[in-house]
Amino acid sequence: MNPVLERIAPSLIRAINARKRPGDVDLGLGEPTFRPDPAPFAAALERVRAEGLPYTPNAGAADLREAIARYFAFPDRSTAANVCVTVGSEEALYLAIKTLPDPVRDEVLIVEPCYLAYPKICALEGVRHRTVALDPADGFRPSAEAILGALSLDTRLVILNTPANPTGRVWPESELRALADGLTSRGGGTVHVLADEVYRELYYTPERPVSIADLYPHALVAGSLSKSNALTGLRLGWLIGDAATIAEATKVHQLVNTAASTLSSHVAMEIFSRPETLGEHRPRYAERRALLLDLLARHGIEHAPVEGAFYCFVRLPEHLAANSLAAAERLLDEHRVVTVPGIAFGEGGEGWLRLSWVAEPDALKAGIERMAEFFDCP
Amino acid sequence: MNPVLERIAPSLIRAINARKRPGDVDLGLGEPTFRPDPAPFAAALERVRAEGLPYTPNAGAADLREAIARYFAFPDRSTAANVCVTVGSEEALYLAIKTLPDPVRDEVLIVEPCYLAYPKICALEGVRHRTVALDPADGFRPSAEAILGALSLDTRLVILNTPANPTGRVWPESELRALADGLTSRGGGTVHVLADEVYRELYYTPERPVSIADLYPHALVAGSLSKSNALTGLRLGWLIGDAATIAEATKVHQLVNTAASTLSSHVAMEIFSRPETLGEHRPRYAERRALLLDLLARHGIEHAPVEGAFYCFVRLPEHLAANSLAAAERLLDEHRVVTVPGIAFGEGGEGWLRLSWVAEPDALKAGIERMAEFFDCP
Repeated sequence: MNPVLERIAPSLIRAINARKRPGDVDLGLGEPTFRPDPAPFAAALERVRAEGLPYTPNAGAADLREAIARYFAFPDRSTAANVCVTVGSEEALYLAIKTLPDPVRDEVLIVEPCYLAYPKICALEGVRHRTVALDPADGFRPSAEAILGALSLDTRLVILNTPANPTGRVWPESELRALADGLTSRGGGTVHVLADEVYRELYYTPERPVSIADLYPHALVAGSLSKSNALTGLRLGWLIGDAATIAEATKVHQLVNTAASTLSSHVAMEIFSRPETLGEHRPRYAERRALLLDLLARHGIEHAPVEGAFYCFVRLPEHLAANSLAAAERLLDEHRVVTVPGIAFGEGGEGWLRLSWVAEPDALKAGIERMAEFFDCP
Repeated sequence: MNPVLERIAPSLIRAINARKRPGDVDLGLGEPTFRPDPAPFAAALERVRAEGLPYTPNAGAADLREAIARYFAFPDRSTAANVCVTVGSEEALYLAIKTLPDPVRDEVLIVEPCYLAYPKICALEGVRHRTVALDPADGFRPSAEAILGALSLDTRLVILNTPANPTGRVWPESELRALADGLTSRGGGTVHVLADEVYRELYYTPERPVSIADLYPHALVAGSLSKSNALTGLRLGWLIGDAATIAEATKVHQLVNTAASTLSSHVAMEIFSRPETLGEHRPRYAERRALLLDLLARHGIEHAPVEGAFYCFVRLPEHLAANSLAAAERLLDEHRVVTVPGIAFGEGGEGWLRLSWVAEPDALKAGIERMAEFFDCP
């Protein structure tokens, strides 16, 4: 057996979910609860009737690659050659981490708290990695300075996530610009930035956030239809980058799983042919978020600003802050509310809990009330 | 950039396909031309309307894992815990190669001629590998003796393919039994066998071939619905093995792409609920094969016995045998027939051409006539 696998820890999120009993309020979910529009599926079925279901090319159907490139329209990365269609954004992350760093010499820098797949993929691939933690005292505010200060001579890839899981923060243009400028003016080899933008369509800032790929030539973007269109089971994502990197990543993609599902690709093509549908769920999330913020304020629960995604990172009161896993377990066992302990997102998340606010309004109310009760009663 | 990627050669099959012109007879195809049954897709669409499209668990939906395990019913590997649902059999191969050998110490032995993804995945993963060639003088007859004679002390995984691409040979029970016995009685550590059985349903022997997993406890089987049900674009496959290996492989699977498509999983569940449909295309292949064998005999074209899959491995006449790539290029450029040079399947395939006989009967006739003409005219 490959000994690297033994060292990959099982997911804490799963361990929490395994304790869940029927009737518990689930604020631990990592996927939308809205129903997707069935129309693109009906259209995909018609294509299967007409064409059968052959492979797409490895990097994806040419029309879909082109439609994705056009939708994002990143400078110098807006043609089909800049897109590899992947099995969800997870595979896009995997391909980028497997393609860009030289595992013998290079180092990856990961912004924490974060989705733990980033360090786990690095560990699986034998790629050296370090983390840089955003400041909890500052609500995990995205900070170019933090990244620039943490770079080593060997850093060749920085991974950030915006809107971020678990913090809900969005990297603002000013910080992305400072990051791009800092990386550009720095001597030494090129530092790539991999931006996980899987929550890209779910932002609650006045303007659509810009992407690092709008500002920096060495950026790659991972995304998918999972969160925007409530299609986690579609497993249809993309990696966008310079054509040379995409060509190399496609070699890996071909050996990993040949290509994404043609059926999922048909559904995606329907969606990208009416790209306004990518933002259709946003107003409903905004409404639920308003309810959440009201509930949190009413109960005096401290949290990081909720600027995007469908998570809220809640600060544990002092008497619980030392062990977020124990707190999440007690909240579940004693108050029957599922949340995810901050430690599940790295050391930088200790002392916090992630709650997901895609639950129905009544469940959300009940969950926050019980959480407040738990926080107030040591 | 990861320097390993530079050393992974582009596919010769693609290079040949890039030379193809409209109107050429295509005997180079690697996928079925039959149309799949649309009924399972309509049922899957109904499930999406009712349930949305959430993630499946990482290793696949429990009912589908169970249905797959029950269908194959391999001894001691017939429960859901023995199955990981993958993105096609390609991902199953990837997971097995990434999970079983220790890349620092172990060696993989690959039976050649073969689908070149096996050595390429090993190269990508930094896993040491050697090949053992079956004997062209014996029509590439599967041989346990050849494998047993090629084992080294470090060999921990043997990869074989039955029915085989490109040779069309099927490993008979006697050879599999000799292999199982030889591996069992040999001293030293366990040698796993990974059997790529993606063409499993397409056999033309009197009885359904047995699997090494029927005979040997350390066997893993990779498969999919791609070839049996003409569903290459479904990207739905499986890795079957002992529960411990499957649990470790699922860790890799989770980091590579989270899970297979829920939509494809629904289609697969429909198919496995009527498992007789897995063999539905076989009689049509058998008919096409009869035509093929008649044409080859009529033109005196030598070939390996066609026992399974939808390929025929054709021996080049002496004046062409030194360079199968040049022969395939001339056959395409001068006679407008697409085939795949044997060298595309490793050194052990040099001197041969792979033709795929899923083309329409008229195209198949034209292709073989032109091939005969090319072979006869130095």
